[in-house]
Amino acid sequence: MVYQATASAPVNIACIKYWGKRDTKLILPTNSSLSVTLSQDHLRSTTTSRADPSFSKDRLWLNGKEEEIVAPGRLATCIAELKKLRKELVEDKDASAPKLSTFPVHIASFNNFPTAAGLASSASGFAALVSSLAALYALPCSPSTLSLIARQGSGSACRSLFGGYVAWEQGVLDDGSDSLAVEVAPRSHWPEMHALICVVSDDKKGTSSTSGMQRTVQTSELLQHRIKHVVPKRMKEIEAAIKAKDFDAFAKVTMADSNQFHAVALDTEPPIFYMNDVSRSIIALIVEYNRVAIEKTGKRKAAYTYDAGPNAVIYTLQENVKEIVELIVKYFPQKDGFKDPFQLFAGGSVGEGRVVEGFNEAVAKKFEVGAVKGLIHTNVGDGPRVLGAEEALLGPDGLPKSLA
Amino acid sequence: MVYQATASAPVNIACIKYWGKRDTKLILPTNSSLSVTLSQDHLRSTTTSRADPSFSKDRLWLNGKEEEIVAPGRLATCIAELKKLRKELVEDKDASAPKLSTFPVHIASFNNFPTAAGLASSASGFAALVSSLAALYALPCSPSTLSLIARQGSGSACRSLFGGYVAWEQGVLDDGSDSLAVEVAPRSHWPEMHALICVVSDDKKGTSSTSGMQRTVQTSELLQHRIKHVVPKRMKEIEAAIKAKDFDAFAKVTMADSNQFHAVALDTEPPIFYMNDVSRSIIALIVEYNRVAIEKTGKRKAAYTYDAGPNAVIYTLQENVKEIVELIVKYFPQKDGFKDPFQLFAGGSVGEGRVVEGFNEAVAKKFEVGAVKGLIHTNVGDGPRVLGAEEALLGPDGLPKSLA
Repeated sequence: MVYQATASAPVNIACIKYWGKRDTKLILPTNSSLSVTLSQDHLRSTTTSRADPSFSKDRLWLNGKEEEIVAPGRLATCIAELKKLRKELVEDKDASAPKLSTFPVHIASFNNFPTAAGLASSASGFAALVSSLAALYALPCSPSTLSLIARQGSGSACRSLFGGYVAWEQGVLDDGSDSLAVEVAPRSHWPEMHALICVVSDDKKGTSSTSGMQRTVQTSELLQHRIKHVVPKRMKEIEAAIKAKDFDAFAKVTMADSNQFHAVALDTEPPIFYMNDVSRSIIALIVEYNRVAIEKTGKRKAAYTYDAGPNAVIYTLQENVKEIVELIVKYFPQKDGFKDPFQLFAGGSVGEGRVVEGFNEAVAKKFEVGAVKGLIHTNVGDGPRVLGAEEALLGPDGLPKSLA
Repeated sequence: MVYQATASAPVNIACIKYWGKRDTKLILPTNSSLSVTLSQDHLRSTTTSRADPSFSKDRLWLNGKEEEIVAPGRLATCIAELKKLRKELVEDKDASAPKLSTFPVHIASFNNFPTAAGLASSASGFAALVSSLAALYALPCSPSTLSLIARQGSGSACRSLFGGYVAWEQGVLDDGSDSLAVEVAPRSHWPEMHALICVVSDDKKGTSSTSGMQRTVQTSELLQHRIKHVVPKRMKEIEAAIKAKDFDAFAKVTMADSNQFHAVALDTEPPIFYMNDVSRSIIALIVEYNRVAIEKTGKRKAAYTYDAGPNAVIYTLQENVKEIVELIVKYFPQKDGFKDPFQLFAGGSVGEGRVVEGFNEAVAKKFEVGAVKGLIHTNVGDGPRVLGAEEALLGPDGLPKSLA
């Protein structure tokens, strides 16, 4: 009998940003956050877990490279928590259930997007890890319960336990048992939400978000105001915007919160910068694109947001993606052709790009090829998926197939 | 009889930043601010004013180009206020005093630094304007009283009415009569304070500070916290640091306030960016330079500060200027040689530059020639000077000499 399960999990990009921990071990945040889950058809982590009494110890391979599992590290914590749930919720209640909690596990995980893309892979990675072990252990747990464990691997991973629109409620309890992800709306509620990721070149290694956010907590004079007064109001505003499918309100709050996250990073000693001149030019383009849209229709058509790096994620409704791709390509010429998963340019290629009528082209200068080194077009997606045996990443010997 | 006076006034660079007006006509700020006056030996505005009944109207030439004086504009306001003081304080009290307040004036002003340098010339310009008219009118006014008028030309101009270390007290009265500059300490109290201005290339025209700060007042969720809670504390801290000549404390507050000013600009809708990748790399260099200094001595040796533009001003004590010039030149190679007004490199040239022992060179990449297009070395200076007739900018015909 082989005890094995494979699951995939999505990336999520926050609209209301998580920045600051009140407990660094349990990864309890200083404020609630909210994200859109992106489609696994384009960006995903896949993980296979196998429990076998013949294994000598727990082992994990990420993209074919073995990672050390050392207690009390994040990987070890997640695996231990899931084994504990297996024992309590399954084995203790059903004497006939195999004692998988006592078996060592082998875990292989793979991201279908390059780490070099600068997209946070820890969220999808820990969500896939938790989902595959939960499937292996047949845990009768809701995604919110699993999110409590994923959170301890990487804070934002808890939001990847759901598809659609997801809030991470900060919680108030010291043990973190109320700091979990909840679904605000499923993907099907507002499927027109699309995302264009602009992968921006970065000369230097930035500050890691783990160390950066703690420096902000310790030194920013503005962060506490953000936590206490701004975020609670914005969480309500964006939840209402999502429920009403009000893109204009969604965009306004999303951009304001991205700006404010980077503002408190800058208000840190020493200051933290994640955006560069390319990031800032993309903001200028979206601001001008929205100015034209507001002049014509009274409403915004796009929202930029930046995580702890220079990459832009531009949220927009499906109908606007084509003209945004053309806008970006005009200022950021691409070396490689645009991968066009939604067949926007079925009749041709993106070409030189262009701007919408009434656009002031002087708001940004044209950059050299490579300033934006790739464009990824995706949309709102579903939560973790349990996959069939044919998708397994571990071979018959319990070692990653990729190493075969 | 020719009624004419010439005065020069200095540039000042704020350590606690002015950002936001509570009254846009009177230029009353939302928070107090504090600056260091820089030496007129290197950067100054010079203005000659002449009153003559034969003139047809008030006229002003800036760097040889005539500017329109239109009420209720800033120039017209300042000139009218000074004429009013002439009448009230001189002519109404002494019947024999010539009625200069009834004569039109010709004013010629000249900045000895290029506008292209991106240094705010409005502060020194309005301070020189007010000083020359005050001299022409023989006004028995203190610099603080004159600062009330200069403030209405350009907010930060009020601080250029004093040398040394200058606070602009925001005031609380609606008529602005308590929103004035006061001397915190004269230049002679702490003459070791030097400044290195890094003139940074800028691709695009930024947001003007006049419109930018009002957008911040209207849209930033963080500005009110800064105004109410952060600045009052920092004003006390930096005044104490100046009085104690505690450079470490001075530097800590100066850098934090520069960061926070740019943070609230970023927290504006749409966001305002004044710093670019070059500005940010200079910050990284100073942070690393201070890290080494703190490791060796427990104290910071330099403080960066940025106004509403990409230029860096680095405050440091005299003894450290040479190694900071060498540091900047290493990462930002100069096309033209460093003008060395203090003879730091009397024995040779700056050359390729170098870093101090223990400096981690990987904190920034080396830029191309021209990223920093000039370095200006100056120090703390004195307040406005009344100059002799030989320095006059107006010719015998009452027109600018520069046009002859």
